[in-house]
Amino acid sequence: MNSEDKLYFEDFEIGWEAVTGSRTVTEADIVNFAGVSGDFNPLHMDEEFAKTTPFGRRIAHGLLGMSIGTGLPRNHPPLAILAFLGIREWNFKAPIFIGDTIHMKYTVVEKRETSKKDRGLVIFKRQIINQKGEVVQEGQALLLLLRKQK
Amino acid sequence: MNSEDKLYFEDFEIGWEAVTGSRTVTEADIVNFAGVSGDFNPLHMDEEFAKTTPFGRRIAHGLLGMSIGTGLPRNHPPLAILAFLGIREWNFKAPIFIGDTIHMKYTVVEKRETSKKDRGLVIFKRQIINQKGEVVQEGQALLLLLRKQK
Amino acid sequence: MNSEDKLYFEDFEIGWEAVTGSRTVTEADIVNFAGVSGDFNPLHMDEEFAKTTPFGRRIAHGLLGMSIGTGLPRNHPPLAILAFLGIREWNFKAPIFIGDTIHMKYTVVEKRETSKKDRGLVIFKRQIINQKGEVVQEGQALLLLLRKQK
Amino acid sequence: MNSEDKLYFEDFEIGWEAVTGSRTVTEADIVNFAGVSGDFNPLHMDEEFAKTTPFGRRIAHGLLGMSIGTGLPRNHPPLAILAFLGIREWNFKAPIFIGDTIHMKYTVVEKRETSKKDRGLVIFKRQIINQKGEVVQEGQALLLLLRKQK
Amino acid sequence: MNSEDKLYFEDFEIGWEAVTGSRTVTEADIVNFAGVSGDFNPLHMDEEFAKTTPFGRRIAHGLLGMSIGTGLPRNHPPLAILAFLGIREWNFKAPIFIGDTIHMKYTVVEKRETSKKDRGLVIFKRQIINQKGEVVQEGQALLLLLRKQK
Amino acid sequence: MNSEDKLYFEDFEIGWEAVTGSRTVTEADIVNFAGVSGDFNPLHMDEEFAKTTPFGRRIAHGLLGMSIGTGLPRNHPPLAILAFLGIREWNFKAPIFIGDTIHMKYTVVEKRETSKKDRGLVIFKRQIINQKGEVVQEGQALLLLLRKQK
Repeated sequence: MNSEDKLYFEDFEIGWEAVTGSRTVTEADIVNFAGVSGDFNPLHMDEEFAKTTPFGRRIAHGLLGMSIGTGLPRNHPPLAILAFLGIREWNFKAPIFIGDTIHMKYTVVEKRETSKKDRGLVIFKRQIINQKGEVVQEGQALLLLLRKQK
Repeated sequence: MNSEDKLYFEDFEIGWEAVTGSRTVTEADIVNFAGVSGDFNPLHMDEEFAKTTPFGRRIAHGLLGMSIGTGLPRNHPPLAILAFLGIREWNFKAPIFIGDTIHMKYTVVEKRETSKKDRGLVIFKRQIINQKGEVVQEGQALLLLLRKQK
Repeated sequence: MNSEDKLYFEDFEIGWEAVTGSRTVTEADIVNFAGVSGDFNPLHMDEEFAKTTPFGRRIAHGLLGMSIGTGLPRNHPPLAILAFLGIREWNFKAPIFIGDTIHMKYTVVEKRETSKKDRGLVIFKRQIINQKGEVVQEGQALLLLLRKQK
Repeated sequence: MNSEDKLYFEDFEIGWEAVTGSRTVTEADIVNFAGVSGDFNPLHMDEEFAKTTPFGRRIAHGLLGMSIGTGLPRNHPPLAILAFLGIREWNFKAPIFIGDTIHMKYTVVEKRETSKKDRGLVIFKRQIINQKGEVVQEGQALLLLLRKQK
Repeated sequence: MNSEDKLYFEDFEIGWEAVTGSRTVTEADIVNFAGVSGDFNPLHMDEEFAKTTPFGRRIAHGLLGMSIGTGLPRNHPPLAILAFLGIREWNFKAPIFIGDTIHMKYTVVEKRETSKKDRGLVIFKRQIINQKGEVVQEGQALLLLLRKQK
Repeated sequence: MNSEDKLYFEDFEIGWEAVTGSRTVTEADIVNFAGVSGDFNPLHMDEEFAKTTPFGRRIAHGLLGMSIGTGLPRNHPPLAILAFLGIREWNFKAPIFIGDTIHMKYTVVEKRETSKKDRGLVIFKRQIINQKGEVVQEGQALLLLLRKQK
């Protein structure tokens, strides 16, 4: 077994897909994310206020869902990422509640060579999915990956 | 002074802009964000690896920059947010290094009434700017705000 | 809108008051505060012990309530604080339980010029109030604020 | 060795004193305290702003110093605390900088029986002292302790 | 009272024992330990998966139990530790669930002089015990302690 | 690609080995581990004291090294762990300093069927190795893995 294995630009083709492991989003995650981000919006932090909203209770920060999505356990070697270029059309489609268990499905939707021979652009559709199978967040991530053959 | 003041849909017009207070991004922020997200990518967490990259040292997670952007201190009443709908075209333009001090500038670029009379869509251009005045991240956030007159 | 706005010594007069936004105190807050402070007293951290106390369950550290009080969202520009000089007569009047939602009311009770012309002392009465309207903590904070006219 | 040992009301007399172990205040402590409290004031979090203040660099939150003071390692059995009633005249005398190492000296300055026979009030002078021997914070804490003989 | 008191090699004999104070293991502890360690195994972090295991719900990381064991409040002066040499035969005998309250009992089972006159080896049996009196973890810790007489 | 892939009892044989990705141990990790464990021993938390020790500066908690070892990024599918049974002969051979970058090498040294047909015991030698190639911690972990064929 070669411990140096990573997934390179050449390892992906359009339609390649994978799903991550899952994680339950807890009250502690929301509290900790508020602490890291500084975002103490009452939608996330004030149960009395949250009771008066259509959701009826506190919801996770949208960016907490995105952030957890990037860190969920994967069952394949790590990507040979050179840079995370950006995000395209990210939609917060439904709330993530305390106790929801989410995973991410990602699918290669686009792949492009660049002017530099040692790297290439791969665009992944990312879907955050809860324990009921609902897509709660969805968008595209643009990753610059290293190529094996430079 | 009325403590109930919030900024509603009607309070914004295209071109409205504001800048937040600033915050220095520390090694502890990166460590804490890795812990919350689960993203322990060596670009952020492995100094020996980072020395071999074009950046030459660890950089902050892109989503940490975005997340801090949402929580920076503001000098106006909080927005009457009903929902954070999504993100459009977010670009990670330059790295955020440990010790960089960032703030956010946000500008209303679009405003739309919706079919529901009690709310409206406001699109903010958000720019994360470092202590040298460089725009390190840039994109648009779609917020659904409450209206005063329903 | 001038993003440089802060509230200076001249902006306050005796009787000026404001209330902050609210935040629900969670088990995670208590755990995190224990971790930061090192205070693992069983009143806060040991549910079996806490059952034997008059409160019947764990309570938040008194200083956690004070600390959250200083960081609750405000709906006015930040104060032009030069220094937080001290605290006068702080009383922990009632416990804060997990799940309580607290906000702070603050009122200017005293204001004094100092020998230095660029600053002044403002004393705020601070009251931490829970979701039932009970004042759970109360005291005075002595802040040295900058003056606009120096 | 009796593991049930605690220090009760009767164990203290005026003039009793002790010093805690020490702890170095780190940048991570300040970041974590900001996250718990929500207090992201630029005095603590914005190095560029801090350079323009008389201190010339970020300083720890005053309440972080107080909070660490309550949790420093002690070399005697824990106190049989029934309640932490309040604080009297707490002064933030000098800043705590990143890298300072602080400990606490506490001295019994007052002791009072109460109408209830199972408890008594003990007032401790608390001094937070840095590695240079400077008292950086000082005040009094009012603790209600259990009595052995009820 | 001499604040310099520590427990040295000479202060222990075989059979010496003590018990720590207790602490309730919370969901926040598990979340925070995952963040520090990077161990997001679904046994600890995925409630849906955990329901399908023999335990029926999430359990604490084994090393979280061990780690909390080292930090529980003690009612004697701190040990004069020169080094924590290692662990011998540590067994995770039963799970620690969210809400369990644990303490540690430690007993000197072996004591050895070393070639260096200023130190000695003390081996402690450590038992992590839950609120039902069950030993959930058990093993031995090898500590190198300073001697008073060098 | 089958996202259900895990490594089962049958996937290992004696001599199987792998190395994890690496992570730099930071001051923030030590501070956070102290907060989670409650272990504020001056070896880890008091720079002034640490200067007087043979190490000359603060060192990471031994259990922090072990804990990070369990969470380092792996480049193979997750193990089908039924239980982490215990640790055998774990040695803290050398200190981990702030700024050290560690990874783990693990090697199967023993493998045993058990009376239950659906599981088997695999014993891994684990070595925590720093950026200089020094083994700083070493021991054995006993894992109960699921079998594919039950």
